[in-house]
Amino acid sequence: MTADSEAPGVELVAEGCSLVAGRAVQGDGPEFLAFNPRTGEEVGPVFREAGLELVEKSTAAAREAFGTLEYHFERGPALLDRAAALMEVHRPEIVERAEIETALSRTRLEGELTRTVNQLRFLAEVAASGERLDVATDNVPNRLALALVRLPIGPVAVFGASNFPLAFSVPGCDTAAALAAGCPVVVKAHEAHPATSELCGRVFIEAVRDCGLHPGWFSLLQGRSALGATLARDPNIKAVAFTGSERGGRALFDMASARPEPIPVYAEMGSINPVFVTAASIESRGEEIVSALAASIIGSGGQLCTKPGVVFADYRTDAETGFASRFASLVEISDEQPLLTPQIRERFLHSLQVVAAAVSGEGEDCGGQIRGGPALLASGRVIRASLQDWVREDALRDEIFGPASVLVAAPEESWLDVAHKLSGSLTASIWLESEEHVRLAPLVRALSTRVGRVVVNGLPTGVRVSKAMFHGGPYPASASARDTSVGACSLDRFLRPVCFQGVPEELLPRAVTASTTRHQSG
Amino acid sequence: MTADSEAPGVELVAEGCSLVAGRAVQGDGPEFLAFNPRTGEEVGPVFREAGLELVEKSTAAAREAFGTLEYHFERGPALLDRAAALMEVHRPEIVERAEIETALSRTRLEGELTRTVNQLRFLAEVAASGERLDVATDNVPNRLALALVRLPIGPVAVFGASNFPLAFSVPGCDTAAALAAGCPVVVKAHEAHPATSELCGRVFIEAVRDCGLHPGWFSLLQGRSALGATLARDPNIKAVAFTGSERGGRALFDMASARPEPIPVYAEMGSINPVFVTAASIESRGEEIVSALAASIIGSGGQLCTKPGVVFADYRTDAETGFASRFASLVEISDEQPLLTPQIRERFLHSLQVVAAAVSGEGEDCGGQIRGGPALLASGRVIRASLQDWVREDALRDEIFGPASVLVAAPEESWLDVAHKLSGSLTASIWLESEEHVRLAPLVRALSTRVGRVVVNGLPTGVRVSKAMFHGGPYPASASARDTSVGACSLDRFLRPVCFQGVPEELLPRAVTASTTRHQSG
Repeated sequence: MTADSEAPGVELVAEGCSLVAGRAVQGDGPEFLAFNPRTGEEVGPVFREAGLELVEKSTAAAREAFGTLEYHFERGPALLDRAAALMEVHRPEIVERAEIETALSRTRLEGELTRTVNQLRFLAEVAASGERLDVATDNVPNRLALALVRLPIGPVAVFGASNFPLAFSVPGCDTAAALAAGCPVVVKAHEAHPATSELCGRVFIEAVRDCGLHPGWFSLLQGRSALGATLARDPNIKAVAFTGSERGGRALFDMASARPEPIPVYAEMGSINPVFVTAASIESRGEEIVSALAASIIGSGGQLCTKPGVVFADYRTDAETGFASRFASLVEISDEQPLLTPQIRERFLHSLQVVAAAVSGEGEDCGGQIRGGPALLASGRVIRASLQDWVREDALRDEIFGPASVLVAAPEESWLDVAHKLSGSLTASIWLESEEHVRLAPLVRALSTRVGRVVVNGLPTGVRVSKAMFHGGPYPASASARDTSVGACSLDRFLRPVCFQGVPEELLPRAVTASTTRHQSG
Repeated sequence: MTADSEAPGVELVAEGCSLVAGRAVQGDGPEFLAFNPRTGEEVGPVFREAGLELVEKSTAAAREAFGTLEYHFERGPALLDRAAALMEVHRPEIVERAEIETALSRTRLEGELTRTVNQLRFLAEVAASGERLDVATDNVPNRLALALVRLPIGPVAVFGASNFPLAFSVPGCDTAAALAAGCPVVVKAHEAHPATSELCGRVFIEAVRDCGLHPGWFSLLQGRSALGATLARDPNIKAVAFTGSERGGRALFDMASARPEPIPVYAEMGSINPVFVTAASIESRGEEIVSALAASIIGSGGQLCTKPGVVFADYRTDAETGFASRFASLVEISDEQPLLTPQIRERFLHSLQVVAAAVSGEGEDCGGQIRGGPALLASGRVIRASLQDWVREDALRDEIFGPASVLVAAPEESWLDVAHKLSGSLTASIWLESEEHVRLAPLVRALSTRVGRVVVNGLPTGVRVSKAMFHGGPYPASASARDTSVGACSLDRFLRPVCFQGVPEELLPRAVTASTTRHQSG
């Protein structure tokens, strides 16, 4: 690593490649191209899908890299810090390409890159601190000495997400957590942003090289769902991390569970993120609440896993409070925004049609939500439903991925029953006044059994990367309800406890020795 | 709870019942009887299998009990302590019945009951300390306040094991850990010891009643494998804990993974527990080592999940060291011991036949290992194999459940390759001299990737219940390699982190408030 290697020297260029253990290679499968959602046009370079041979080369190299470890990946923090620095160096190329492939706004993408860099640095710190290695020791005189320490599980397959080309994709939380835990990574790039993925992948192979590590620590494969299936079944892969649709996550879960040696699938999938708003809060600050919710629903085209998908508001009648019409107007007044892919547009349209058919009474018309033509534009939408509709119609309880939310007129007396009918979500939120705490304590408790994060007087979108964050939840929010894809605990997914019994100090992982020293001196 | 309730008053009697939310009831399925392995005779009372109706009643009651929780099960420690006290009160009836149904020795069963009582008390302490609730807080001024706390996941189905009628059955580690975590329990008794299970179940319903708890906190169902399938598919059940065969555990795993809402299966299954012995240790203390290993192999009829199933010894030739013949004679000289069930006897016989067919050269004859007649007696057996045999024959790498072990003459140079061929085990052990540490460090490291516990100069049998114990391992040792069924961390299986964001103190779980107070005052 030379002193000037962080200067913006050689520009990164995407050449339509997979990156297999340090080498840029073309796949030998079918060709595919990325798609600019704003223009509706395909954009180069041409990619070819990676097939079995590249999968096997990548995972064999990952296994070999893993075999170089002596218990812990002590150079993990340096690798993540180097990748973070290089992401900054190549920020212009990466953001520019991501803007073309996703049509997310430049502001959003600049912010996402910053968040991704911070996440790499945060997880480098977590790894360096050793805090997730969770050492316990039993050292009763004249009895067995035991030391419990968490070790990395082996090579991890990471599946990039469509909706976060950086923070939940190649350089995102799963890659960072796996490397921080000491697990080599083979990423399947999301086919919606292959060139962005290639640029980020080149950052990682450069970082691996700069740190003098085995090239098997990082590979990137380009392709579509067939590639994913091959990767999830590869015997060298010991865990899968995925962010995406329930259908996609469940398919991977089913494949991984059916292996001769089943492996864990950490899939973060569908979530409706229910929101409850009390009558008193509508009265005291209804405008503040609808503004916040509307922004949360339409931001990034509504394509966030934490988007509020259903709002239960005790708004009496719209004539009395104006809540429903003000909410609808704020969501629906927004400019049309591009969705990420033709498939997402198609599913969004389909969801709106199904929901319209399910809603009685208010004569919903969901046509015109999607403009024709090649661009993937859609505007925001609020679907008003009665509580009876919501209880009766399964369709109203499914996630709508895109800038839409269901507004249910629901008196507070119904909320506990509603909470028990909710399927698993990443989050649930309540807007309430301070004098209502005691009365709503049972609702907060009930919601805590259905979600991974309970929010009071705040928005579920905007997931902080920190020690206490949890980004997961009961199925279908996550395939593993105990695990988070964001925050310090995200390393736990890729660590496995091992007990050392009667093992002399010179044969123990260094983390144990260090911890024992801490305990003795502390 | 009266002062004299711990006096040995009313004797517990098994009446052939399931125990559904506090009531003793007869199932409506097929009849079955327990079996005395020592006499080969069936023993009463008559049991009838619990069917769908009793399963649904039990799990609905468990869900209802769970609904009474406000975040944490603060009376869990009292419940476990009360159950421990009652186990002591009813020790005579329980041990007597277990001896009839399992033919394990009275010494072993007395010890197992003591261990089970200690385990209940240990997990009561762990629950009371709050240490597994793993609270983290982020409280950056002017930013979001986050609190991360682990909450119970819901009703747990526990499957009793054949080989530990107490410590891994009704009153065992899974029941204790689930209750300690705050999860109501529905136990499927193992059909090999239904009356022992009923007696222990009556202890738990008495403890639940004495503590004034909802009767849904504990149910016990009698039956065979069809009952297990019904239970694992029940939508009120949120996790499965199982100890038993790979076939049984995998079947439950497959069923639970195929549910519309998949649930975790913590199955502790097959394990061969490899042992390595260096030439230097054979030379310096060969007799000590073979004696220890032989006792570990034949104890409890070899029916322990941590039994050393394969020994790789660098013993040169038997003529030089006498290691192999001394080892064989110590294992094979032992008295015939009863195996637990006819199925286990049958599988043991089958395994020996398969292994005999697989071993070349030494003309193994495994007939006569099992005496005919109604009793389930078997004596110990060492199967000698060459390294080539072991590498070539899959059968030699499978678990043999019973008093037998494979002895492989393997020079130390081969051990790293051997380690890489091992499938997942609960344990691996090495006997070595202190001057050999440095040379064997790579082997210790390699074994740590294949097992959940590495033992140096000690036996894998005898699993201490403590903070640093880990009783699990890579597949097929466990269905979830990250989880342990023994020790303080066993609670983690039944806890799920939830983040509270911006939640006012009066709406938070008390554990968070307590922890924050500790942090502030500490």
